[in-house]
Order: sequence, then C-alpha cells, then structure tokens
Amino acid sequence: MDRADIAIIGTGPGGISAAITAVIRNKKVLLLGRAELSGKIAQAHEIRNYPGLPAVSGADLAKALREHLRQMGIPITEKRVGAVYAMGDYFALQAGEDMLEAKAVILACGVVQGKPIPGEEELLGRGVSACATCDAALYRGKTVLVIGYSPREEAEAAFLSEVCGKVTYIPVYAAEPHLPAAVEVLRTKALGIRREGAKLLTETESGTLTTDGVFVLREAVAPGQLVPGLETEGAHVKVNRRMETNLPGVFACGDITGTPYQYIKAAGEGNVAALSAVSFLDQQKAQSK
Amino acid sequence: MDRADIAIIGTGPGGISAAITAVIRNKKVLLLGRAELSGKIAQAHEIRNYPGLPAVSGADLAKALREHLRQMGIPITEKRVGAVYAMGDYFALQAGEDMLEAKAVILACGVVQGKPIPGEEELLGRGVSACATCDAALYRGKTVLVIGYSPREEAEAAFLSEVCGKVTYIPVYAAEPHLPAAVEVLRTKALGIRREGAKLLTETESGTLTTDGVFVLREAVAPGQLVPGLETEGAHVKVNRRMETNLPGVFACGDITGTPYQYIKAAGEGNVAALSAVSFLDQQKAQSK
Repeated sequence: MDRADIAIIGTGPGGISAAITAVIRNKKVLLLGRAELSGKIAQAHEIRNYPGLPAVSGADLAKALREHLRQMGIPITEKRVGAVYAMGDYFALQAGEDMLEAKAVILACGVVQGKPIPGEEELLGRGVSACATCDAALYRGKTVLVIGYSPREEAEAAFLSEVCGKVTYIPVYAAEPHLPAAVEVLRTKALGIRREGAKLLTETESGTLTTDGVFVLREAVAPGQLVPGLETEGAHVKVNRRMETNLPGVFACGDITGTPYQYIKAAGEGNVAALSAVSFLDQQKAQSK
Repeated sequence: MDRADIAIIGTGPGGISAAITAVIRNKKVLLLGRAELSGKIAQAHEIRNYPGLPAVSGADLAKALREHLRQMGIPITEKRVGAVYAMGDYFALQAGEDMLEAKAVILACGVVQGKPIPGEEELLGRGVSACATCDAALYRGKTVLVIGYSPREEAEAAFLSEVCGKVTYIPVYAAEPHLPAAVEVLRTKALGIRREGAKLLTETESGTLTTDGVFVLREAVAPGQLVPGLETEGAHVKVNRRMETNLPGVFACGDITGTPYQYIKAAGEGNVAALSAVSFLDQQKAQSK
C-alpha cells in the first residue's frame, strides 16, 4: 500500500471530520476504523446538541456521516491499529499483520472506557494482549481467557477459538454473547490478573482461572500503549489548541483529548487536527526542498 | 429583564452551539445577535466540511441552525452589545441604551475583519464610535462620517441620518448602498483619522473630511474593546482548551478565539464553552451556599 499523507485512526465524528477536511485540502487520507462507525454513536438514543441536526438519533447521525463520506468518495479501511511507530520522516502503523505507512497521524480513537483491571497494564506484552489479530499466533493450541468490553469483541474471541486450544470468554456488557460452541462463556467479573511461572492467574468473582494468555479487548487502546512516547494525562492524550501532541506529526481529536465527550466537540477538533496536519505536511515539504 | 444565567454574544455556529447545549443543561440563556444569523454564513457559497451536512450552502446551513433553535424554543435577542462589564457576581452588558445582566458570558462574536484605520483605536470614545445605537445622541444635529464594513451598517447610517445633521457614508464593500437621500455616499478609502480641536479630520483618498464624529461600523467589535481587561492575542481572545478566558465567568468560542475560521470548529468550541460556563455557574452556586 502506498504511503498516505495522513492516517486517521478512528471513525467517530472526530476522525470523520478530520478525513473530510484533509481530503478537501487534497491530502491522501487513510481512514482506519469500522465501516459501521463508532459503536458509541449508533447506541446513542437521541443527540440534541449537534447544531444543524436537531434531535437526531445516533443511528441517523451515523447515517449522515457515512453519507458525507460516501459523497466525498472517502473509504473506510477496516483495520484495528495496535501501535504507531515514529520512523523519522514517516510513521509505521501496525494493524494486525500489516504495516501501514503515513506521513502524519491523527488519533481519533476515542477514550478507553473503564479502569484497567489490576495487573492488566503491568502484564501487557507479558501474557496480557490487547489485540487478538496481533497476538493469536503466540497462543496456538494453548488456553486463553478473553475479557470483552463490547459485543464487537465476540468476533475476536471466535477467531481465537480457531487458533488456540481453549477459549473462555467473559463479557463486560449485558447482551447475550453469540459465540461458537467451543468458546466457554463465563458471566463473572475479573478482579485482577497475576503471573505464576508460565501461567496467568485471573482472579474472578467466581474463582481463579488459569490460562496461558489473557486478551483484554476494549473499544479503544490506551493512547500511551498505542503510540510509544506520547504524552498523556490519565486516559487522555495531551494536546494544545492546534490539536498537536508532544510528537511532531501526531495530532489528536475527539474523546481521546479529554472531556467533554460530545459529538460536536469531536467534529470541531477533527477539523482543527486536519488543518494542523496539513500545515505540518506543507512545512515538511518546504524543508525537504 | 431578569438576569440570565449565560449571555451568549453572537449568532454564528459557535454562539448557536453554545446556546443549544446550555439550554439542554437547563440554563437560562440570553442569545444576542441577528435573527438572520451571522452575515458570513449566509454569504458562504458551499460548505463541504460540516460533517453530517454534506455540500450544504451557507443559506441552508443558516436555515438548519435556525430550525434547531426554533425546535428548542431558543429566541434570538436582536441587540448589539457594545461593552461587557464585570460587576463582581454578575456581568452587565451594554446594548444601546439597555443594560442586560448575566451570571456568565460567552463571546461568540466573530473576528474583526481588516486592520483598524490609523487613529481609530486611539480616538475611540473621543469622537470615534463603534456603535450607532449607543452614541447617536451625542451627535444630535451635528455632522458625522460613517465608515461601514458591510451592507448591514446601512441601517445604522440611516438611523444616524434621522438624529444627526449631516451623514456621509463610506462603504468598505463592493455592493451599491441603499440609503436615504439625505445620506451622502462617498466611494473612497479612509486612510487615517485625527482630531483637531472639536473636529475629527478623516484623511481619504479623495481628500480630507471634517466632521464632529466618525462611526466605524464593523461586523464585530475588537474583543479588548468589548470586555475591558480581557487578555487578547492580536484580534483574538486568548482561551485555554476549556474555552476559558483570563476573566472568570467569561468564555469564548468560534472565530474570535483564533484560526482556523471554520464552521465546525466554531460549533465544537461553542459546546465546550457552554459546558465550562455551566460548571462555572455550578461552582458559584456551591460557593454561595
């Protein structure tokens, strides 16, 4: 795949707004996320404060945003980015087994919901994984626990059950999971994860589970995990009024930059992030001449 | 008039967004501006990057915003605010001969277009006025020059011609002015204003005009003139990510806070400004208990 000018991670109102403005400014955009857009939007009952679309349902706002992308010919690339690496004059985005490239990156991937499970952050990369596509191969034929924060993660668990020996699934939501029979569903709450030798022990309200790996699958990856070196404030990326992060060429917009978590705030920030990314690219171009 | 919770000055996308969110948060809002909304919007040919409203004309965006206000029962009070004074626990807004009151203020009045005329700022309040409604009475029967930056100012000039002795009008735009016969229209450019004794001398490309007063009428008042003590950066108000200015209780959004001058950026900032004003009011309330 050719190197994009701007990779935009996330298809909520922030990412979509950034993509629209970047395309108007003639930049080659790689918009990464879900074709059905942000899970949060579609779930919203009624949004009353998106100016110009009074009392719009979440589903209808998502439809209007999709239609806007369609009219401008902007495709969504359905990949989940696990990590972004600064390579000097470009960025490498790890998306499963693919490496994508872009000259600038806009983080619009939302905010991580819920606190980390005790032990989760410490053991990340040492038995705990945030990405099934990335790490399934490490657990070929082994036993894994999947803790899924949205029904979307069921597809990930199903995929793991094709690769791993035994998969147990804890849903962190009310809806009934739809999973292959091979996956054991446990209705319980994970209280903590710890390592003992080669095994991971997950303490739950219904006892201790012993597995080779634990996948904790959330709607969004914590920004500091996603981009090494990124300055964060709690669950948020630190940005200035131009939506610049501490890393040159990396911008952010939407919930990931902090409260208020509002659609129109995200859309406004997406516009600013895109224009700042455009100026960054223009400056890079001027310097390389 | 009762004291409002939040006075919002300006009816562009920033002010309207702020009003919508503040009303959803059960605040008593005083939205000050023009019923036909921002002059800039209606003039916009096609807006392609307001997510959810693809390729909308300026007129149609204005219509959608007006409809949103109508559905939420938010009226526009058609007054032009000349000054905002901090009175301790509330703000007084001078609007012509009226004094309005609010517990918090959101500045959404856009950015002043064009540089000041040499002498304009120095002589403001000493012969130069930015507000016909406020100062017409000072020039009863006298001669005034009106420098109008948009066709909207023609109504102001017409009003001045009913009060003052002689009115000369310099349009700073291409369209042909529609004015009462009593108003003399001069197609020229004002180069500078100075005082000589009781008279103001305005140097123009077609010679010197001597009058008792000069009204310089722009789409927006410079923010430092509007709110004494407000920290500015050139033509813009300095704000942080919460849209707070240096003055507690005064917030800003939209073009007045700086570039990029974009509708969706203004709408996003209006939302944030409203929510910050709501928290300010909540804190004030908690402290007064």
